[in-house]
Amino acid sequence: MRTPQVEPAAGLPAEVTIYEVGPRDGLQNEQTVVPAATKVEFIRRLEAAGLQTIETTSFVPARWVPQMGDAEEVLAGLGADGVGRRRPALVPNERGLDRAEELGLQAIAIFGSATETFARKNLNRSVTEQYAMFEPVVKRAKADDRWVRAYVSMCFGDPWEGPVPVEQVVDVAERLMGLGCDELSLGDTIGVGTTGHVHRLLEALDRRGIGTDRIAVHFHDTYGQALANTMAALRDGVSVVDASTGGLGGCPYAKSATGNLATEDLVWALTGAGVRTGVDLDQLVETSVWMAQQLGRPSPSNVVRALAGG
Amino acid sequence: MRTPQVEPAAGLPAEVTIYEVGPRDGLQNEQTVVPAATKVEFIRRLEAAGLQTIETTSFVPARWVPQMGDAEEVLAGLGADGVGRRRPALVPNERGLDRAEELGLQAIAIFGSATETFARKNLNRSVTEQYAMFEPVVKRAKADDRWVRAYVSMCFGDPWEGPVPVEQVVDVAERLMGLGCDELSLGDTIGVGTTGHVHRLLEALDRRGIGTDRIAVHFHDTYGQALANTMAALRDGVSVVDASTGGLGGCPYAKSATGNLATEDLVWALTGAGVRTGVDLDQLVETSVWMAQQLGRPSPSNVVRALAGG
Repeated sequence: MRTPQVEPAAGLPAEVTIYEVGPRDGLQNEQTVVPAATKVEFIRRLEAAGLQTIETTSFVPARWVPQMGDAEEVLAGLGADGVGRRRPALVPNERGLDRAEELGLQAIAIFGSATETFARKNLNRSVTEQYAMFEPVVKRAKADDRWVRAYVSMCFGDPWEGPVPVEQVVDVAERLMGLGCDELSLGDTIGVGTTGHVHRLLEALDRRGIGTDRIAVHFHDTYGQALANTMAALRDGVSVVDASTGGLGGCPYAKSATGNLATEDLVWALTGAGVRTGVDLDQLVETSVWMAQQLGRPSPSNVVRALAGG
Repeated sequence: MRTPQVEPAAGLPAEVTIYEVGPRDGLQNEQTVVPAATKVEFIRRLEAAGLQTIETTSFVPARWVPQMGDAEEVLAGLGADGVGRRRPALVPNERGLDRAEELGLQAIAIFGSATETFARKNLNRSVTEQYAMFEPVVKRAKADDRWVRAYVSMCFGDPWEGPVPVEQVVDVAERLMGLGCDELSLGDTIGVGTTGHVHRLLEALDRRGIGTDRIAVHFHDTYGQALANTMAALRDGVSVVDASTGGLGGCPYAKSATGNLATEDLVWALTGAGVRTGVDLDQLVETSVWMAQQLGRPSPSNVVRALAGG
């Protein structure tokens, strides 16, 4: 069944851009290493279901993330469709940018950290040192008119440092956006944030000149807060939301659960609220069921379970 | 870790009453029939964790719902604590009220339907005929100064009828509240509702004189919308929320998934937003883990999985 289609609910945007992270952030955090051909078919199916922005892969060294060791192969499979302005790929450093440029990618994403501990663990650098690493990447990419997104991870809490102060996140965001990035994605990497915290962060960013027209939100459902936080951000003016088809990304049945907001659950919420997404939910659910079969485990998306039995 | 304690986020109430439905709505929908002594211990643990309002059981005939066939035994186990104004039990009809009165219960709940099909299936009556059944129950209970809650089920969608018109729900709510009930609980029994729909329903009820001071919300997480819908209702002025510890109620891994909003996920959201609930989250999570052991399956609450590994 479907909820009735209505005018956008008060305070919500008429249209939301879903930034689909399943093929990259989702599959990167799955135990199973998925073959490149399956990834290509996954992306094709997502396109067919109406997703217009899809992050395709990551140019991180295969020795760091074996799940993403086939970036060139995936992009070869996608052909010209895989390198447009709405098909960004993650680029960790200048070497990654070299690879992306070779393939003609028109959009890239860098991945920064709001906390010292995670910057050390994920980037092997301090928070301050990360700017030096990202600066040539962003400058070169912008000089060639590429679209650049800056992820900031651990924007709400950090497993080692606890709650992350809003001003600390704003400082990092300001430095990264100051390099010339087009979009900022605020990541609640461990899923601990709540609605009031989302509001305070968006307000603080706005005061520093980073308005919601340049902000995307990226919530994980570890504590069940992802959709509530997303809806709070939309009411504050955000209109780009990161989500992962089928809730891919980390096993939801383990202590370290780090599943992304499921694209299907988001589409259900937005369709019911009269917000356009361009996504065909049935086709998306079919895609999730197909992908879950490839991974050999049921989808953690509530909507997929409800409509397709998992 | 914890999110920082802050002032209530804009638009949220300073305090929320959690109406705990785990022992009744939760266990009633579990496959396993739990022994009365275990139910008593469950309720005691919930009290110790700070839950102030707990629905204890149901006086429905055991041949309809074997899971609730031990109402007298559960209440005997609770003693005087089990019959106060914040320990309601479900009373389906006059025979149920006789049983509740015999035990001295000071609070009861009736369970109506917003749709014809569910009224037929659940009450063996039409929507109109349900009023005749409930009228003597409410009149007698109010004559003895008992507190009466009216549940209305299928307020957003119905598995047989599809989306349920707001005006239809308001008509049913008005008739039931007109009998003299103290509180109205709006149930999204199959979990299909979305935030805009919640807002429209609350607005329509308010226009008919049923304000948010008499309304509780009861969401199921079947489509992942329960917490987002709850937060929307709180911003509209509701301050009583039904939730089920551990997300008890229906298996979350089946097509017919009908799990209630998990009390832990709600407490996490409210604590983070600076809203008081009086609940000690760690103690509640311990209780969920213990109850999940009794049921022989992991808790579907995200917070329980994250903090206790399921």
